[in-house]
This record gives sequence, C-alpha cells and structure tokens, in this order.
Amino acid sequence: MATPVILDVDPGHDDALAILLARADPRLDLLAITTVAGNQTLDKCTLNARRICTVAGIDDVPVAAGASSPLVRELRTAADVHGESGLDGPAFGTPTVDVDDRSAVELMRDVLSAHHEPVTLVPTGPLTNIALLLRTFPQVRESISEIVLMGGTTGRGNTTPYTEFNMTVDPEAADVVFRSGLPVTMAGLNVTHQALATDEVLVRLRELGTPLARTCVELLTFYGTTYQEQWGLSAPPVHDPVAVARVADPSLVRCVEAPVLIERQGEHTAGATVVDFHYRTGHPDNARVAMDLEAEPFWDLMINAVHSYG
Amino acid sequence: MATPVILDVDPGHDDALAILLARADPRLDLLAITTVAGNQTLDKCTLNARRICTVAGIDDVPVAAGASSPLVRELRTAADVHGESGLDGPAFGTPTVDVDDRSAVELMRDVLSAHHEPVTLVPTGPLTNIALLLRTFPQVRESISEIVLMGGTTGRGNTTPYTEFNMTVDPEAADVVFRSGLPVTMAGLNVTHQALATDEVLVRLRELGTPLARTCVELLTFYGTTYQEQWGLSAPPVHDPVAVARVADPSLVRCVEAPVLIERQGEHTAGATVVDFHYRTGHPDNARVAMDLEAEPFWDLMINAVHSYG
Amino acid sequence: MATPVILDVDPGHDDALAILLARADPRLDLLAITTVAGNQTLDKCTLNARRICTVAGIDDVPVAAGASSPLVRELRTAADVHGESGLDGPAFGTPTVDVDDRSAVELMRDVLSAHHEPVTLVPTGPLTNIALLLRTFPQVRESISEIVLMGGTTGRGNTTPYTEFNMTVDPEAADVVFRSGLPVTMAGLNVTHQALATDEVLVRLRELGTPLARTCVELLTFYGTTYQEQWGLSAPPVHDPVAVARVADPSLVRCVEAPVLIERQGEHTAGATVVDFHYRTGHPDNARVAMDLEAEPFWDLMINAVHSYG
Amino acid sequence: MATPVILDVDPGHDDALAILLARADPRLDLLAITTVAGNQTLDKCTLNARRICTVAGIDDVPVAAGASSPLVRELRTAADVHGESGLDGPAFGTPTVDVDDRSAVELMRDVLSAHHEPVTLVPTGPLTNIALLLRTFPQVRESISEIVLMGGTTGRGNTTPYTEFNMTVDPEAADVVFRSGLPVTMAGLNVTHQALATDEVLVRLRELGTPLARTCVELLTFYGTTYQEQWGLSAPPVHDPVAVARVADPSLVRCVEAPVLIERQGEHTAGATVVDFHYRTGHPDNARVAMDLEAEPFWDLMINAVHSYG
Repeated sequence: MATPVILDVDPGHDDALAILLARADPRLDLLAITTVAGNQTLDKCTLNARRICTVAGIDDVPVAAGASSPLVRELRTAADVHGESGLDGPAFGTPTVDVDDRSAVELMRDVLSAHHEPVTLVPTGPLTNIALLLRTFPQVRESISEIVLMGGTTGRGNTTPYTEFNMTVDPEAADVVFRSGLPVTMAGLNVTHQALATDEVLVRLRELGTPLARTCVELLTFYGTTYQEQWGLSAPPVHDPVAVARVADPSLVRCVEAPVLIERQGEHTAGATVVDFHYRTGHPDNARVAMDLEAEPFWDLMINAVHSYG
Repeated sequence: MATPVILDVDPGHDDALAILLARADPRLDLLAITTVAGNQTLDKCTLNARRICTVAGIDDVPVAAGASSPLVRELRTAADVHGESGLDGPAFGTPTVDVDDRSAVELMRDVLSAHHEPVTLVPTGPLTNIALLLRTFPQVRESISEIVLMGGTTGRGNTTPYTEFNMTVDPEAADVVFRSGLPVTMAGLNVTHQALATDEVLVRLRELGTPLARTCVELLTFYGTTYQEQWGLSAPPVHDPVAVARVADPSLVRCVEAPVLIERQGEHTAGATVVDFHYRTGHPDNARVAMDLEAEPFWDLMINAVHSYG
Repeated sequence: MATPVILDVDPGHDDALAILLARADPRLDLLAITTVAGNQTLDKCTLNARRICTVAGIDDVPVAAGASSPLVRELRTAADVHGESGLDGPAFGTPTVDVDDRSAVELMRDVLSAHHEPVTLVPTGPLTNIALLLRTFPQVRESISEIVLMGGTTGRGNTTPYTEFNMTVDPEAADVVFRSGLPVTMAGLNVTHQALATDEVLVRLRELGTPLARTCVELLTFYGTTYQEQWGLSAPPVHDPVAVARVADPSLVRCVEAPVLIERQGEHTAGATVVDFHYRTGHPDNARVAMDLEAEPFWDLMINAVHSYG
Repeated sequence: MATPVILDVDPGHDDALAILLARADPRLDLLAITTVAGNQTLDKCTLNARRICTVAGIDDVPVAAGASSPLVRELRTAADVHGESGLDGPAFGTPTVDVDDRSAVELMRDVLSAHHEPVTLVPTGPLTNIALLLRTFPQVRESISEIVLMGGTTGRGNTTPYTEFNMTVDPEAADVVFRSGLPVTMAGLNVTHQALATDEVLVRLRELGTPLARTCVELLTFYGTTYQEQWGLSAPPVHDPVAVARVADPSLVRCVEAPVLIERQGEHTAGATVVDFHYRTGHPDNARVAMDLEAEPFWDLMINAVHSYG
C-alpha cells in the first residue's frame, strides 16, 4: 500500500524534481502540495509549483499557498542559485493548474483530518508551514506519521559556513519541528551532496526524449551553472528528491538516530543543525539523520519517475 | 456606532474583568473571545473564559481555544499570581457556555473576513494567537483596524526585572506583532499599575449587591492577596481591562508614539519591550505607548460594566 | 583614618568633578588615578585627566592610562554629551601633570600590593580596566576592599532605553566585575539623576570666585547644554561624583542589597543591569544598589571640595 | 636564524609534546613558556609545564602562570581527555624547574619588549592570556610577528558538535585575537586530526630508548585510551605540536587565507570558528587556516625532537 504524503515545497529546481518523484513513485500517494517562501517569494514559488504540475500533467493533487515569510524573521531568498523566477532555465507557458482556496496550513489540516491513516509530511523548504500547522492545529499531530525533511547538515553549510539554506531562513520554525516530539528524519547537505546531477545523469535524462525530460535537462543545466559559479562544483546536488526517495524506498538512504539541536541565537550560526553524534550535549535522540545515499538506484528512481510522465 | 473587537485572553483574574467590560460597554461590539495559554494552560484558560461568560450570562459571543504553547518556546504560567485554576477565589459551577469547534485563529479569520468593517484586536495574554493569525492568514491584515494589547512596560517588569509576563512568555510572537506594520497600541505595566483595585473599589463593587459583583469581589480579593504576597502591593493592578478601556474611550488612556523593539535574544531580558522615547536606536515609531490612565473614570466604567449585567 | 581609593575614570565632565572630590575630601586618600576609553578615546580621556589635575594642582597622585578599547567589543564614545575633546567647554593649557610609565592595570596592581590595607576601587567609566586587573592579577583580590562604581540603572537607561553608557560600552567587563565575588556597590542613573547641577548649584560655584570654580562652571554649562539638547533636562545629572561621595560619606547614599545580572547577549539590551529586587531570577545578592541621594549635603560636599583647591 | 617564539600552553598531553618540540627544534628560539587554565585548572597546568621541563631538562626558559579563568565565562576543563592531573599516565617526581614571579602577561610583555625582533606567539590552549596581553599592553602589538594557534576547526568539533575545546572554553578571547588585526594562523581539528599517534609512532618512540621517550610513550598511551573511549578513534590526534611545527617548518602545514568569525552568542555553538571559504558572510580574510599536514615529516620532526633531549 502506498505511503500517503504531503509535499511542502519552495520550487526551486530541486523542489521541481521532488514534485515529479513524489507524484510518480508508485510507493507514494501524494495527497497535497503546499508552498512556502524560501528559494523565492511565496508568489513565485506557488507559480512555480503550478508550472511544474502543468508541464507534468499533475492535475489531481491540490496545491495551496502557505507562509509568505518565516515564523519570526525577515525572508531571505536564494535568487543566486535559482534565478529571479526561482525556476530559471526553461520557458514556461501560463499554468493551467489552479491554486486551492485554502491556505497551506488549512489544506494540510483538512487532508490530515480526512485521511484514514497517518500521513508523512515531506518539507523541502523552510519549515514555516509545518511549524504553523503544529501550533495552529495541534490536534493534527496524531495524524502525522513522520516528518521527512530536506534541510540542515552534519558538517558545513551552503548559506553560511555552518548552515544550510532552509534552516538559515527559518531557524525558529526548525526549532519547533525538531522539538515537536514527532518522528523527524533530516536529509541534510551531507547526504544530498551525494545526489549529484552529473553529465551522465543529464545524458540519461536527455535520452528519454520526452518534453518533460527536456524541461528537466534545462532546469538542471541552469542549476548546474549557478552551482558551478557559486561553489565551483562540476555537478549540482539535487537536494530535495532525496527526502522523497527516503520515503519511497528507505533502503536508499541510511540514517542514524541522534540528538539534533537548532541554533537560534548565534550571530554567525543561526539555523545550524547541531547534530550530536557523540552525546556531548546531554540531549537525547530526537531525529533520524540521513548519512549515506545509494546514488545509482536513486538516479534510476528519479529518471524512471520523469520517464513515467511520458 | 460601536467599535467591533475580538478579545484574545488567558483568564486570569484581570482577563475576567476585561471580558466583562468588553461585552458590557455600549461603545464596543464584542464579536469573539479567543483563548491562549499564558496565565495558565490553554485548557484552564478556556474553561475560565467559559466560566466567566456563564456567570455573566454572555451566551451570544463565540469562544474559541487557540495556541496551547508559545510560538517557539516552552510555556511558563503564572500560577503564583492566579492560582492553580488560573481563576482562584470564587467557586464556579459547570459552565453552560460552549467552546467553538474552530481554533482561535480560524475563528478570528472567519470573523475578520465576514465583518463589514475592520475590527480591533484586543489581546491581553501572550501574543501567540495573533502572530499565528498574521502568519497563517496574512490576507486578514486589511480587516484589522488596530491591535490594542495589554503587555510590556516602559520601565521595570513583573516577571523578570525588565520584562512583563505576556511578553516574557512569548517574545517571538511579540516581535511578530510589533514588526507587523499594523497599528499597535501597547498598554503596559507603566499604565496598568495606575488601575489599582483599592479597598474603595472593592467597597463599590460589593455595594452593587449582584451575584456577578460578588464574584468580582472574590476574584479581586484572591488576586489582591497574591499581589500582596508576591510584590508587597496593598492594592493589585488590574491590567487587562485597561486595554479594553482604551478602545471604549481613548480619552481615558493617554498614549505617545514611539519605537518599540522586542528583545528576543537576551539571557536575562528576553521579552523586554524596549521603548525608545528618545530615538537612540535609530528605529522609527511603530507603536502607540500608553502613558497615563484616568483612574477614576476608568473605575466608573468598570463598575458600571459589572453593574449592567444585573 | 582616610579610606584609600583608586579612581578609574574616562573624563568626561562628571569624571572631572569626581577627580576633584576624590582628591579633596579629607575622608579619602586618593592613591592613583587611572584612565579608560569611554566617554572619549583613551588618549583624550588621559589628556583630560591630566588637564583636570593640572588646573587643580593635583601633582602628587600618579595618573596611568589603561585600556583603549572594551574587553571584547568595539569602542563607542559619548561625544554627543561630552564633545569632541571629551571635556568641551573650558579652554585648557598644556597640562604639566605627567602620565605614569605603567599601564593602568600595572599601577593598580602596584598600589594594591604596596598599600598596607585594602583599597576601594572607584570606577566611573566602562569597567574594562577593573576586569583586566582581576583577570591578569587575580592575587590583588585580597587587597581590594570594595568596588564602588558609577554605572547601570535600576530602571531606564541613557544610551539605549534600558542601558546606561558605561555598561553599554563594555558589558563583558561589567559581567566580570559583578560576578567577581568582591563587594560591589552600584551607583546607577536611578540615584545619579538625583545629583542635578541646577542653576542654584552653578550660582554657588560661581560665587566661589576661584579659577577652578570658573572652570567647573564652564564644564557644567557645556554639559548642561548637551543634556538639555539630548534629553530635554533643565539641569544635568553629575553621575560620577556620586560614587565618590558614597565612599567619602556612606550616609549620603542609601543602598540596598540585591542580585544584579549583566545582560551580555541582548540584541537591544546588551549592558542592562538587571536588578532583581524581588528575587524572581533565583540569583543571590551580589551587589549593593544605590537608591537615594541626600542631594543637599552632596552638593555641599562637592562645592566645598572645589573651594578647598583655592 | 631561529624564529623567536613564546609558547602559551595548558598541559595537557599534546601541549607536553608541543613544549618538547618548541625547545628542541633548531629553527625555533623558545623565549618563554606561559600557562593558562584550560585542559585543567591553572595550578595543574602550571605544575604540568614544570614537570615536562623538569623531565626534559629544560631549565633555561622562564615559565610563568597566567589566567586562571577565561576572559568572561566560567572555566570548563577536559579531565575526560587528560585525566584529573591534566597529564595522567606517567609518574612524575617533584619538579625542579621554578615558576617565574611575573604573571604570564607580564612575562610576555617583558620578553616582547626586550627582544630585538618581533616574536611569534604560539598559543595551544584557550586564548585568554593572549587577549589579556593585547588589551592590557596594546603597545606590544608591534613586537608580535604572528600568532600561530592550535584551536578551532573548519568542520565538526570535539567539545560540542561544531566547536573545538580551546575555542569553547574562551570564545570572547578567541574573538579578540581573530579581530586583532595581527597575522593569525589557525591550526584546527581539520588539520590536527592528520597528526595521529599511531602504533607505529609509539613503536618509533619506544625504540628511542631514552627516559623522556618512555615518558612520551606513557603520555600517549593514556591519551590514546581516552580518545578511544571518548571518540572511538584508534589513534589519538596530537593537536598542539602541529602549531609548533608550522612555525618551525611552514612547508609542513599548507594554509589558505580566509575570513574566520568567532561565534560568541550561540546557545549551542559558542566558540565556533566560522571559516568562510566561499565569502558568503561579506567579511574579509583575517586568518591563515591550516588545511593539510605532511604527516610523515611531521612525525620525523617530533620524534627527532624527543630524541635530541637524550
């Protein structure tokens, strides 16, 4: 039986791939897509979610817009990586997929309340919507099976030296989620940097020959260029689908239990995910931390997903 | 025409009086009562709101429960002041007033959306619900006329040396509200300590001779005892009705415009309302700060309100 | 027998008066004057200390220069109050009093080690030198009888809404001093604002008719002008001599014991002296906090001191 | 011509090796040894420095005791790694090498003032003494050629997940040093974990057959056991001699220039050395950061040093 999931995204190039994987994988039942400000403003991220759904023909999953700013702080975006539109690269037509009337938090609440079994939340942007959900409708907790998120790092970061983008944007929301007592799995940079869109990956995608595959190649080409410029990487990491892959096939992503503390006060480290493998801080385990990715099967999964849309 | 208001409370002895005043004053149109964890846990505060409505016969105002914990931090309560029930003193029967199915934030959203003119929010507890409302349903901003809150101080505090209780409980929510760009009026300890329930006030209440007046006397007697014990004050300040009075009759509470910054990071000062009368911080005005109360007319207002319930 | 004192200053108009009082009062034995960056840069403050000693004919007290910046932070000065020279107002000639070869901390160490009885430290600027002394030469602790400082406040501040200048400049040094375990007396703004240089005070000084009194009048006239401009006060508070007066005649300044915590982390409150009169923080007493000044005898003392120089 | 150095240590097993290397290497002229509280209390660290000098016969280098606590914070030690004595393992007799009358800061000042050319400071403990020196005697800056320190990390830490021990103990002192404007080289965990005292190293030391070599083997055996227990490492990193080796032969330790910010405010990250290789923070280079160690020549150097004592 497929695992029911709600995907919370801020597309974003890798979020786009996460949407495609989440809808296509037969082991997942994608109940809703919600958007949050992060890689770009909320309006741009919501438009981008609708664009991806439109080009992929995903018209049976509700899409709702969520928080336009972090829980407490001012928004910072990642235009340096994702471009002015948040999804630079391909040309997109006017999307035909609509946005739900409900806010992201309401849609999540409604889906969680209505579904017959607990649902896995898969946030791949700042954790603002999830924190608002937990604080506004605490009764949904029992309908959440797990939170499998892309964000954080066990080592160095990509936004400040010690912090990953999603966590830097909303450290307070991250703190709410990691201290929520719910099962949390963190797929951070340490593992997502094992999901590199190499030239070989691009070749395989191009060989699919479908329009959607072409769009994916254009997305990854732009994304690869900014990663090359910003970080000198020859192949860009596609972070967000790793969280989706973990839910679809847990064997692809090895995890360990550990205490994870969120730094909120640091002047230079706010948003750090302090992963205490050696139990130096005296805190108990509160998360599963992704450590290793089976990169080849991961890319097979991803490419098959794109292929499945025809 | 009466000013439409939503009262957001954590009863709490002074919140009880705030409810009575908000419903009774003919210049106010009380559209909803919402509750928040603060003086006691959410369950206790919601029960107490229903108790007060029941004893006063307020059965035409929806009551909804809100956040059970602050936006980011752990809850701390004020059992030392308000007792284990949050409303120690009188004996209350089983309340007949029900709680709304909606959460506080939903009820506020619904009321704000439905009302034909902008509404004044009057929070007298931690600002958690208001922050959640602004972040979850940002579209309601245009339906908010003003936020007139009890909280903060221009000088010394009552929970730590520099912080007032509501702000100490949820500094992050306070920061969201004060940086929201909406009109904010702060009635802090500097002005609410001018609203003392003196022996003369108790005599006047007792002389009303009504059951509700007796309940008020019992409430203020317990409350006065804890203030006497905790702070050595011979008469307790009834903070929350001052915010309501400001909306009912602005002439009772003189205000000045000032920049107000919320301290979130302080080790010993988190929750401080840093009121910058002399513009030393370089920030612009973002709030009206209550400075002086006309204490006699205020008590006339309050006692007339109690009287009006019969 | 006179109380031996070391005066640590950042002149500064009110520091100038503190020097005059400390040298003149027969109940005090002024062993050394040390300077610290604060109201102005170290070079300017040291020059100003030499100027005051020169005009007053104080040539038997060693003057040594100390820290040119706070313990950890960057220096901020108070040119808005004390002018570009740090002692604007009078015209000063070239000082004839020299500066000691030793640094402030060395001179303090030498004086403390050599003196036959414990010495009272009277810092009236940022506490940088005192913190450096305690950390560099901890063995001098037993030669320190007490630290009687001007700084902090029990209520509102003069540099940010909740912080006084000396504490704002060097919160880390303040924290070292207040947590040192040594007897500390804090004369903060709450008491120094009772030492106002009113017109009547200026008249009395002017009537002394001495050159030094004329200089004092010129100093207080400039100082009064900036206070008038900055704060709208009709008479400026002369903070620093209050700490000296407390040592000369403890009966002039009533104190209470209290826990005082120093805020180091606050974004808007760093340097706050969190005085916990009601023991809400769980910390024990660590300071005597000055509360009330006998203003008339204080000014008699001060004016007699100026007079005594002839 | 030999490079003049002052070694500032908190022995500590690896500090012991640093002393031996600094005195023995012909390219170094060891002018003074100063001690600081860190791995153990000041008294223990100073005793240990004298013990090492005694067993090695180093009697021509002054040893002075410095700060007994960090600049601002309370001391935390590393008894879990270095044992109760700070130098557990060998049995030491009563040391014959004396401690200088001067404090560490005074001795450093005197040596720096007297030497005919600028001197390199090599701190391998918390940076308290160095910060005190710079603040108390700023005139010595021009006599400091460089500060080559052991501390910090570019990645994960050994005391909290993101912080190294020396920096965690005194973040404020670290901040003073890294913002001092002096040339700073940081040899952090990322490079010192390339200096592992493997079984092969122990065999080579044992084969030297000298009493000092036997002491070193005993030291490294104890140290290896605690590292095994605490961190599961099969061979312990000897951090401190790496900084000395960098001065003796810069070609052994490859460095890159980078901005390094010290986190002072973090709740879980205070003491983090935020190394901004990709210039995301907008700060300019302020340090050379050690990246790679030539491990084999390093151990040749170290073992030859021990051998040279006979």
